[in-house]
Amino acid sequence: MQILNLDTYSIFVGDIWKNLQQFLSEKNYSHTFILVDENTMECCLPIFFEKIKNTNSEIIIIPPGEINKTLDTCQHIWSELMRMNADRKSLLINLGGGVIGDMGGFCASTYKRGIDFIQIPTTLLSQVDSSIGGKLGIDFDNVKNSIGVFQNPQAVFIDPIFFDTLPIEEIRSGMAEMLKHGLIQNAAHWEELLKIENLEEVDWEKYIPTSLKVKQHIVEEDPFEKNIRKALNFGHTIGHAVETLFLETETPLRHGEAIAIGMMCEAFLSFKKAGLPENEFQLIFDFFQKKYPQVHLPKEDFPTLINWMRKDKKNENDAINFTMLKGIGEMLINQTCEEKEIIETLEFYNNHTKI
Amino acid sequence: MQILNLDTYSIFVGDIWKNLQQFLSEKNYSHTFILVDENTMECCLPIFFEKIKNTNSEIIIIPPGEINKTLDTCQHIWSELMRMNADRKSLLINLGGGVIGDMGGFCASTYKRGIDFIQIPTTLLSQVDSSIGGKLGIDFDNVKNSIGVFQNPQAVFIDPIFFDTLPIEEIRSGMAEMLKHGLIQNAAHWEELLKIENLEEVDWEKYIPTSLKVKQHIVEEDPFEKNIRKALNFGHTIGHAVETLFLETETPLRHGEAIAIGMMCEAFLSFKKAGLPENEFQLIFDFFQKKYPQVHLPKEDFPTLINWMRKDKKNENDAINFTMLKGIGEMLINQTCEEKEIIETLEFYNNHTKI
Repeated sequence: MQILNLDTYSIFVGDIWKNLQQFLSEKNYSHTFILVDENTMECCLPIFFEKIKNTNSEIIIIPPGEINKTLDTCQHIWSELMRMNADRKSLLINLGGGVIGDMGGFCASTYKRGIDFIQIPTTLLSQVDSSIGGKLGIDFDNVKNSIGVFQNPQAVFIDPIFFDTLPIEEIRSGMAEMLKHGLIQNAAHWEELLKIENLEEVDWEKYIPTSLKVKQHIVEEDPFEKNIRKALNFGHTIGHAVETLFLETETPLRHGEAIAIGMMCEAFLSFKKAGLPENEFQLIFDFFQKKYPQVHLPKEDFPTLINWMRKDKKNENDAINFTMLKGIGEMLINQTCEEKEIIETLEFYNNHTKI
Repeated sequence: MQILNLDTYSIFVGDIWKNLQQFLSEKNYSHTFILVDENTMECCLPIFFEKIKNTNSEIIIIPPGEINKTLDTCQHIWSELMRMNADRKSLLINLGGGVIGDMGGFCASTYKRGIDFIQIPTTLLSQVDSSIGGKLGIDFDNVKNSIGVFQNPQAVFIDPIFFDTLPIEEIRSGMAEMLKHGLIQNAAHWEELLKIENLEEVDWEKYIPTSLKVKQHIVEEDPFEKNIRKALNFGHTIGHAVETLFLETETPLRHGEAIAIGMMCEAFLSFKKAGLPENEFQLIFDFFQKKYPQVHLPKEDFPTLINWMRKDKKNENDAINFTMLKGIGEMLINQTCEEKEIIETLEFYNNHTKI
């Protein structure tokens, strides 16, 4: 068990259950609600109930997936809290991946102007990404996370025990954010992660805290994403747009898969515009191409993709904002580029990936 | 012009326009949006544009009234912001009554996880009530303000110039909250207000800051309504339920009118249970009966009323929470009572009011 102490809360990594039980006993909430989706209800809730006794909790169930990270689902969650007379001294436990954490946290933060919540992220992605930083929200008008708030949980409990319930693609998706943490600020972490050969046999307690620390330092310096926190956006300007493009198709991309493609594209932009050495660019591009699923980006969708990039929250004064690399482990925030450079990048991606 | 300096922002009371112009120039927002409803667009926006030059603002219009303080209207506001490419350096100016301020503030606080907003309350009620305290939100599932956040504006600009656009009933409604401020913490203020004979000839700049200061002191002591802030709830446990009961009828009550009825009932409870002297109770009851419109509360609706009281945000552990008076100018928070005492109160109200 490792404990990261952040400004206002702690993250527990490892065999979390004793600490969780203690947290629940000490806080003495009037009501406890557990938010799950249909998958985590089946795979994760039994683990929770095996480990934690006597919670007396009510369960709120929502349909799974990013496609349900909507205001409609929030209305269901709020109505359930209301129906079960949740008062301001209630606790919401978000048991699931990023969607559960983001949306559950948002619903808790806005229910009666805010009740406590804790995060028990059950995927690698949500453990290394959304567990730090207080970003909560939902998708709206086809724009990811466009409605939300900044609010920290009371605590985060991370246990790799849940990975046994996940397909390997989901682990790979989470790895993409860890690789990003290495690329933007910790070259040694990136190199360590490159050495991993079998995703089914990883000592996660060794790697997760390193990734969390990269994110922790950046977020603590800039909690409201005014400047340096944009570093974490590497791969996300293009990645989010690609994720949105495939969201409602029959072959949606996992978040990390889309971000991997985003990082390939933005590494190309970094090489072209920000001084990323060619050999480092090639290493990044080839690694993600080899290890992650690739797509074809139809030329007729370029305007749509660019339009979505334009709607990204980090933009200011109508320019599209990028985080670029000047080398592995070193990033530059607030980079912008012309539309034609983005188009060139998307074309490069299409021409240099094998599907 | 008077200026109240709160912890993180200032409230300007009087001829606000020079200060507002200066605020807008100094802040240099990327986009400025003005939220109005159909009424304030007609009555208040022309005053704004006459006083403030060169704002280059976009207008967002919503239908008026508490009945539209819903998630549907929020979706319209968010969509409009999105459509007009509002970025995080945008400002939302809420020009209107409490609904505009509460809902506009909520939408601003959740759009892209939060953009700046200022309040220009145009009714007496919103000037003395919702301009302090950072409470934002909307009605949901028939429960008032059940979804929302605490967030302070960048500034509040209060000018009685807008009262010329209001019916006298609206002024009377606002006065109810000022009277409440007197009752809970400033007996001299209560007595001063009782002396006002003609609501059309009041020097508002004299009274508004006194009311604001009562609220300021209470809110600064307890920003998140954990304890003493509940003082402001006097008249509201029953008042909110009565307001909700009449909300969708042909004769809805103004907020202050419902709170006046709530104060009559809760003064009775205070007399019965909290030591409010009988002569003071009688003074309060008779004053509101004489000056404010009265209703009949159908006996068959008592369970519904009590059910709504039960859903109030200030409740904990399933008890219904009241703020009571032990004397004029002195309150007691966290009082509870039996259902039969509430029923007795509602019956007393019915039996002792003339309609």
